Amino acid sequence: MKHKFSHFTCSLCGAEYEPEAVTYTCPKDGGNLNVILDYKAINAQYNTQNFMHLPEASLWRYLNVLPVSDPGNLGTPLRRVGWTPVYKPARLAQQLGLQRLWIKDESPNPTASFKDRASAIVVARAAEIGAEVIVAASTGNAGSALAGMAAASGTKAVIFAPKTAPPAKIAQLIGFGARVLLVDGNYDQAFDLSIEVTQALSWYNRNTGFNPFTAEGKKTAAFEIWEQVMCRLPADSKNLAVFIPVGDGNIISGIHKGFKDLMALGWMARMPRIIGVQSTGSAAIANAFQRGDEEIRAVRSTTLADSISVDLPRDGVRAVRAACETGGTYLTVPDEAILGAIAELGRVGIFAEPAASTAYAGLVKAVAEKIVEPDEPVLVLNTGSGLKDVNAVMRAVPTAPIIEPTLEAVIKELR
Amino acid sequence: MKHKFSHFTCSLCGAEYEPEAVTYTCPKDGGNLNVILDYKAINAQYNTQNFMHLPEASLWRYLNVLPVSDPGNLGTPLRRVGWTPVYKPARLAQQLGLQRLWIKDESPNPTASFKDRASAIVVARAAEIGAEVIVAASTGNAGSALAGMAAASGTKAVIFAPKTAPPAKIAQLIGFGARVLLVDGNYDQAFDLSIEVTQALSWYNRNTGFNPFTAEGKKTAAFEIWEQVMCRLPADSKNLAVFIPVGDGNIISGIHKGFKDLMALGWMARMPRIIGVQSTGSAAIANAFQRGDEEIRAVRSTTLADSISVDLPRDGVRAVRAACETGGTYLTVPDEAILGAIAELGRVGIFAEPAASTAYAGLVKAVAEKIVEPDEPVLVLNTGSGLKDVNAVMRAVPTAPIIEPTLEAVIKELR
Repeated sequence: MKHKFSHFTCSLCGAEYEPEAVTYTCPKDGGNLNVILDYKAINAQYNTQNFMHLPEASLWRYLNVLPVSDPGNLGTPLRRVGWTPVYKPARLAQQLGLQRLWIKDESPNPTASFKDRASAIVVARAAEIGAEVIVAASTGNAGSALAGMAAASGTKAVIFAPKTAPPAKIAQLIGFGARVLLVDGNYDQAFDLSIEVTQALSWYNRNTGFNPFTAEGKKTAAFEIWEQVMCRLPADSKNLAVFIPVGDGNIISGIHKGFKDLMALGWMARMPRIIGVQSTGSAAIANAFQRGDEEIRAVRSTTLADSISVDLPRDGVRAVRAACETGGTYLTVPDEAILGAIAELGRVGIFAEPAASTAYAGLVKAVAEKIVEPDEPVLVLNTGSGLKDVNAVMRAVPTAPIIEPTLEAVIKELR
Repeated sequence: MKHKFSHFTCSLCGAEYEPEAVTYTCPKDGGNLNVILDYKAINAQYNTQNFMHLPEASLWRYLNVLPVSDPGNLGTPLRRVGWTPVYKPARLAQQLGLQRLWIKDESPNPTASFKDRASAIVVARAAEIGAEVIVAASTGNAGSALAGMAAASGTKAVIFAPKTAPPAKIAQLIGFGARVLLVDGNYDQAFDLSIEVTQALSWYNRNTGFNPFTAEGKKTAAFEIWEQVMCRLPADSKNLAVFIPVGDGNIISGIHKGFKDLMALGWMARMPRIIGVQSTGSAAIANAFQRGDEEIRAVRSTTLADSISVDLPRDGVRAVRAACETGGTYLTVPDEAILGAIAELGRVGIFAEPAASTAYAGLVKAVAEKIVEPDEPVLVLNTGSGLKDVNAVMRAVPTAPIIEPTLEAVIKELR
């Protein structure tokens, strides 16, 4: 088959592999693989004006710079992933003293999180290589996104989860018709089993920090940030700072990859500053960044922001580099600040889950510590809907008063 | 002030009122008011080709045929309501033996339900008439939509709820910064109190079946169905049948109003057939339709589809007419069919709450009873995200098996 990319490179040892030579991580050292496009060939055919499928209000508008072929399935939720809105919340900007603030909201995605981007590309890749079953270990947004995108495209999905996973999350996966197997063990055992089964049954594995195509889906958010925000900045503007919540490190790596693609193509003049934000209670990548090395040491994660609660991030090295190589940084914020950010975003009509509000909490801290200046343009990535974790919202807001059903009681309460 | 509509008419007695003369229902008989546009003036300026603000991928593209002025608030969630996707689920169409089936999915709306359409227009109307506080009695999608849209526009929202309302739903309202007052009483007392307070404090009331502008927001879905589906039907196609879930009757009335506007403007050749679907356990409007009258008799509602669980629908008369006047009908479906429809929709990647899946359950019944023919084009309205009621999803799907963490156990289970 003809592949739409040139080769893979290992992010650790730099080894190069032909498209057919490997499927997941580097055979030598287990490093995450980067998918390298044929930039010269793309540049010969396209430029910034003509490479987009303009009528498609989804990530598929960028098909010409994606490493997969057109996945068909027109008129299904698979074709609706991405091209998410960018808000300009004037009241928050004013509150923070920033001249230009955007929030990119991923909740309108089909399964209400950023993860649909990765699953859409993995589903397309599975079709290309003839894989009939896609498997993952996840009970969270990644599992939901795989189940939803597989359903949309009519692909079989099998999802492994520890038997202790919350029944409500499991129900969402089954609701999309995925086959869910609850493993009598912990998450790591479910993860390992998913990989063992992948090899034994020739399934295709979507696991984050393992399958190189998840980052290729996530990079599309960088293309959108570029098209929706950066291309419209005045010429004399300072460089854009992008705040991204970080758990296993694959979102920030994917977005960095998208910007790197645009630089390699010569289509983007200046690399934005990428600022990763972790919960203080789950900060393995931020710790490595602060130490100034790339060694990701496991932590015992304790944050309530479960989508970014990770003991040993599986895409940590590239995540450290995303900040290092762009003049960015890492910040950590405590759970109270994460809950506070849910309420702040809610007050301008944006409903965020804790992992998503973490990025905004990071911005609040960055402003206080003068890590961003008032005239720096800033974009915050809101990765998932508050409906994903209503319990956290309940912890973020005060309770309502109970009153007698009379006008007097109302007036008294409002005074 | 200059209003963007001509007058109100009472849906019961037909009385006409100047825009300034009334605010909510008919002073004579309490009938719901229709907002009547100046069709002649619109027609003098616009036609089907030029009336849309094309760059705006939201209901605001129809500003020229809405009874409110431009609400500003560019770059906020208020400007993102509507223009929801229409799916063409080939597998479901095949299963039902239909040649053309569309599902319009309202879950990408900012608060993940159809109700954002109504709240967006009510917020715009409030700004126009100088109302500083918008009030409603609702703990469900309408309350959430009001809270979200008010937050987006910086308007104050006060929401009354019975003190027995689920804390998770209350938290969503407070999360958007709404002032929530829990009434020591039942829902009817909360509703009545909201109206008493509206009058005493000169607030603006959003209650459904009371404020005439909610239907004006909901009508925008009809415009979209027309633009996204009807305008693309081949000339020799049969008439479109539209399946709509019905609770208090305001969605079906609003959509009917949208189609009536298009007919009055001479822009639409043929009125679609409107088919209302109620839960068997909450069928006050379907009952009236089946009896052949417009008298809405209260029921004791028992359905699990809580967004359409209504004892005495407040917009029942217009809802009966929506089916009567379009050659449509009403169907009722039991809760088991509603749950079954959640699973059916999930298998093609569409995640619906029970009220939303009710319309699809109605279509399944209509096909079985030959109320729609295989060559009739059909559109089903999916009114809200399954994330709104994950408990119902848990009831709709089987549980997952628990296995040992071994390859053998996986293979055995999948056999």
